[in-house]
Amino acid sequence: MRIDRKRLERSMDDLGRIGETPRGGLTRLALTDDDRRGRDWMVAHMREAGLRVTVDQMGNIFGERAGAEALPPVLMGSHVDSVPTGGKYDGQLGVLCGLETIRALNDHRIRTRRPVTLVIFTNEEGARFQPAMIASGVMAGKIALEDAYNTRDADGIRLADELERIGYLGSEPCVARPFRAYLELHIEQGPILEEEGLSVGVVEGIVAISWSRLTIHGVQDHAGPTPMRIRHDALVAAAQVVTGVRRIAHEIGGDLVTTVGRLTVSPNIVNAIPGKVALSIDMRDPKNETLDRALPLVDRVVRDACEREGVRYELEHYWRVPFTPFAPDVVGAVERAAKAGGVRYRRILSGAGHDAQYMAAIGPAGMIFVPSRGGRSHCEEEFTPMDDIENGANTLFLVALELAEQA
Amino acid sequence: MRIDRKRLERSMDDLGRIGETPRGGLTRLALTDDDRRGRDWMVAHMREAGLRVTVDQMGNIFGERAGAEALPPVLMGSHVDSVPTGGKYDGQLGVLCGLETIRALNDHRIRTRRPVTLVIFTNEEGARFQPAMIASGVMAGKIALEDAYNTRDADGIRLADELERIGYLGSEPCVARPFRAYLELHIEQGPILEEEGLSVGVVEGIVAISWSRLTIHGVQDHAGPTPMRIRHDALVAAAQVVTGVRRIAHEIGGDLVTTVGRLTVSPNIVNAIPGKVALSIDMRDPKNETLDRALPLVDRVVRDACEREGVRYELEHYWRVPFTPFAPDVVGAVERAAKAGGVRYRRILSGAGHDAQYMAAIGPAGMIFVPSRGGRSHCEEEFTPMDDIENGANTLFLVALELAEQA
Repeated sequence: MRIDRKRLERSMDDLGRIGETPRGGLTRLALTDDDRRGRDWMVAHMREAGLRVTVDQMGNIFGERAGAEALPPVLMGSHVDSVPTGGKYDGQLGVLCGLETIRALNDHRIRTRRPVTLVIFTNEEGARFQPAMIASGVMAGKIALEDAYNTRDADGIRLADELERIGYLGSEPCVARPFRAYLELHIEQGPILEEEGLSVGVVEGIVAISWSRLTIHGVQDHAGPTPMRIRHDALVAAAQVVTGVRRIAHEIGGDLVTTVGRLTVSPNIVNAIPGKVALSIDMRDPKNETLDRALPLVDRVVRDACEREGVRYELEHYWRVPFTPFAPDVVGAVERAAKAGGVRYRRILSGAGHDAQYMAAIGPAGMIFVPSRGGRSHCEEEFTPMDDIENGANTLFLVALELAEQA
Repeated sequence: MRIDRKRLERSMDDLGRIGETPRGGLTRLALTDDDRRGRDWMVAHMREAGLRVTVDQMGNIFGERAGAEALPPVLMGSHVDSVPTGGKYDGQLGVLCGLETIRALNDHRIRTRRPVTLVIFTNEEGARFQPAMIASGVMAGKIALEDAYNTRDADGIRLADELERIGYLGSEPCVARPFRAYLELHIEQGPILEEEGLSVGVVEGIVAISWSRLTIHGVQDHAGPTPMRIRHDALVAAAQVVTGVRRIAHEIGGDLVTTVGRLTVSPNIVNAIPGKVALSIDMRDPKNETLDRALPLVDRVVRDACEREGVRYELEHYWRVPFTPFAPDVVGAVERAAKAGGVRYRRILSGAGHDAQYMAAIGPAGMIFVPSRGGRSHCEEEFTPMDDIENGANTLFLVALELAEQA
């Protein structure tokens, strides 16, 4: 039994046109009109596949395929939102392979023992509303519903208002419910599978992640008549933080990655000394202890840079997710499915956060990775060969089927 | 004979309310609705003072007080646009002291030999449309009218379209015409007058200025699963440029000032490695040769930083203004006026560009500085004591009167 590669490819093409960028990527920020159109497309095809569709208070969409018995379901899911000028594989591929699994079950007229439910999570990326994975975070009880509702985007627009505006403020409580397994197929977003010529990564867990925000208050002044000796330039201090954060990764080494991804300057004009800079610091490592070592180094880098320039600052380590191991029985089932499908695979860790991380806190979870060309993602050049996608989707189909048949 | 301090102060209060920020500063970007309201206020009071008001093709506003003879006029001017969260003295003070000079001539029923004309220049700051001083640049024949018209702001809006929209696309040709002198009163924007306890700076010239723009093209990728070894981070390279540009000022020393005032990151989200960074480099020195030495150092800083990170870049030194000496006879007349008014003064150079710079290319020009508290400007904290403003305005009145009476 296999999934239908052609049908999956057609769905990828169709959904990929919603929010498509001129250079073939995707900009489908959470809760925008394009996100709504993407959701509408999914809901229509979920209904067409016979699923019973519901929406919860965080806008998460569920499509249930009934099972023979009233047992906790097998969940398959991912997200349809993207980063700005992102790609057509991150998120989208997971929900479409989930949909294809449902369709393949229908093709083969299989009545599973347990229900099989497709889930689409709201605002996984964290590109528009922070933090990322906010909706699975609420479901896992890690983020209060009210806090999530009051999160605002860069223009000050409230998440709850946007949910309502696009018609996806559902009534189902966004709470943990029993499930047999949560399965998420996703692109690796790193170079390993491609480098090793493999189709599938059996994901054993997700690295620990830490997010910090730093605001530096310098003294805004004219770039001409202000002598160097009296300057307090927020951007000069910020630049030293950027290079210092990079240096921490090299000093600690191993698998630690550190990134300053966001940096905004105020007033941001050619002839004014920057009065204020805000920036983000993202650090990840498989070991929690590595982040415990890295965070005080960040404190020191920031303190030294700001003291040197004579500027004030606020530094907040506001989000921390520990290393998340996936459920051994789910990981084992994924590995069996890959083997049964004759797919070249390896066990691997995820360097990116996924909704599977929060789902692992409330039930057995696991993930299936497919390769990212050049290790690239969160960019328009994201690409995964269709052969690998087919192998990944078949693996998802087989593992969902095995788990859904378990008593 | 003196200007009317109370009347001048009232005008400062009234015009200062247009575009006022909550913290008492000013945001009145060129050709916005607030700029239009500021212009309308000026035009109404120029007409009330009996001036004949005309507007040229660049939106520059002229208010002529007729002279007894048909000789080239004495011009007094500055600008009403501001930087974002700027102050209430930069620009505004110059046009209001000019207006007050006209009113004082009226008070004393003085009929000058030459016309005395108040000028308000468009987009002096260069905060919204680049380059700065674009309208006096067109008048001086240094910038083509079509190029100025086609300049776009950060949102892609054309300068000419905004001129038309706010009703200040005039019909008078924006070209050089003979004038006896162009006089501009302005805040110093540096610390010297305050440090030395002086009211007035007799400005001998304006430093040389160089503006460059740099775009760095890295490889946008996910901040999590992308190992440090394969990264090409545009922001890491940019940070090394920022610190390198600062270092150039310290290496060369003297009066050289270097600033990265503008820096924008793309896609600018927490969990993406920056794919693109654009930034500005502003350098100034009294001596042209110092900039000739500094620019190749910028080239090297940029090349080294980008090579280290393995990123592409485009660097353009797109604007250069040489040291501008003011006309000795105008500088001498300003000094005589300061002396005659009993004002504590010194000769000084301007570190900031002003419309006077371009005007000096087409006729005799000079400037009067008043102190900036703490040397601060281009910020909400801009402040000049009213005693100094009164001394500066009286100096402007006396020098305008002397020059307007000359044959």
